[in-house]
Amino acid sequence: MYVRYNYNNEVCAGFLENDMIRSLNGSLFNHDGLGEESVSLSSVNLLPPCQPSKVVCVGLNYLDHAAEMNETLPDAPLLFMKPATSVIGHGDTIVAPKDTGRLDYEAELAIVIGREAKNIPAAEAPDYIFGYTCANDFTARAIQLSDKQWTRGKSFDTFCPIGPGIVRTIDHNNARIHLTVNGEVRQDSNIKEFIFGVYDVVSYISRHMTLLPGDVILTGTPHGVGPVNSGDVMSVSIDGIGTLTNTLKVQ
Amino acid sequence: MYVRYNYNNEVCAGFLENDMIRSLNGSLFNHDGLGEESVSLSSVNLLPPCQPSKVVCVGLNYLDHAAEMNETLPDAPLLFMKPATSVIGHGDTIVAPKDTGRLDYEAELAIVIGREAKNIPAAEAPDYIFGYTCANDFTARAIQLSDKQWTRGKSFDTFCPIGPGIVRTIDHNNARIHLTVNGEVRQDSNIKEFIFGVYDVVSYISRHMTLLPGDVILTGTPHGVGPVNSGDVMSVSIDGIGTLTNTLKVQ
Repeated sequence: MYVRYNYNNEVCAGFLENDMIRSLNGSLFNHDGLGEESVSLSSVNLLPPCQPSKVVCVGLNYLDHAAEMNETLPDAPLLFMKPATSVIGHGDTIVAPKDTGRLDYEAELAIVIGREAKNIPAAEAPDYIFGYTCANDFTARAIQLSDKQWTRGKSFDTFCPIGPGIVRTIDHNNARIHLTVNGEVRQDSNIKEFIFGVYDVVSYISRHMTLLPGDVILTGTPHGVGPVNSGDVMSVSIDGIGTLTNTLKVQ
Repeated sequence: MYVRYNYNNEVCAGFLENDMIRSLNGSLFNHDGLGEESVSLSSVNLLPPCQPSKVVCVGLNYLDHAAEMNETLPDAPLLFMKPATSVIGHGDTIVAPKDTGRLDYEAELAIVIGREAKNIPAAEAPDYIFGYTCANDFTARAIQLSDKQWTRGKSFDTFCPIGPGIVRTIDHNNARIHLTVNGEVRQDSNIKEFIFGVYDVVSYISRHMTLLPGDVILTGTPHGVGPVNSGDVMSVSIDGIGTLTNTLKVQ
């Protein structure tokens, strides 16, 4: 998978395989194969695998979650945004101010855009997607519900962990997504439960705003969302990608 | 006022006075006085005066608008966001896809952040504000209301005109803000009607997310919002800043 990392005080992009990272000849979205240099995973700090200019999110998008909530199925994806300043990487700490009330994990598949996309038909969406990673749409639930607009409760710095790296393809018809808290499974579903598939979501968003290379789309969370407390360790795992782990600290 | 512009295919920052633009020694947020070069305003294309990484907006924030809507006064600013891709400058065309339904202007004072701001007390907010410009929080009202989340109806490319340039100070106790459509006044108020003042808004947002240099805060719109049609010309004017003019094209 593709990763970004700090090495010798430089931000680098590379390809991770068997605990070794090979550098890229060029940038993540415009490179010409792998370089000669390689470093061990243990010698670097992983960064968020891309730096989005924006993070666009889809609300209710899993059939099982809709059934659980007794919600009628939406006609179109419900969109909201998280700011780029909320993005952190694998292993980073989610920091919530005290007095923010209930804090919830939300495991999600993240789409990473590779090319500028405006008014893209769903059939051409694959040309504009660089790849996929795991995300946790971390949410101050009490604030989200009291504001009604979801922005404030989802926008704190560190509330958008993504990672650990980006894979180019996943199995759209069968990829388990699950989340554990301190090792205990809390969410367990499959992206085959999507109401709006990956390509439809990219197409839909691109008809409303231009997506830029590195932009991230969060595709909604399955059933089983719930609260966590300071010190809890959350891990989001998606078949074919890997595991994104972050610890919550309330301060 | 400070402006950004295209000149000889280069993006430049400068200071506009008497229809002449003097270049800056450095960037907008980190310059050491004015340079020697100057060009006439008529020889350049004005750009949006800054390139925000995010645009954070405040909902209901004018006493007169609250009275008009029979709304009780909010306890805290209601936040939402527009994407950076929605930003255009003075003279640029607002382009709305057909079939988006009712389209509304919203005249607003925009705050431009000059220094990274996190957890800033209101008393120190002036140190983090670079200046002020005019904005039009252009809105597909039907989409905003049907989605309930405001993101989609406010996020189309071109739906965030800002400009024409940035002034460093305004009179916080008395600055008329008004908007005309085809020369006819439709909104007419004063920022002394703010429920949450500029410094309180910056402080509040900085306690939720880190603000970066160039980030823009829209401070809410006064009474008198309403619809426009393709070809209509909107001008937002604020005392001490100037006038931001944009034409709507529905296509």
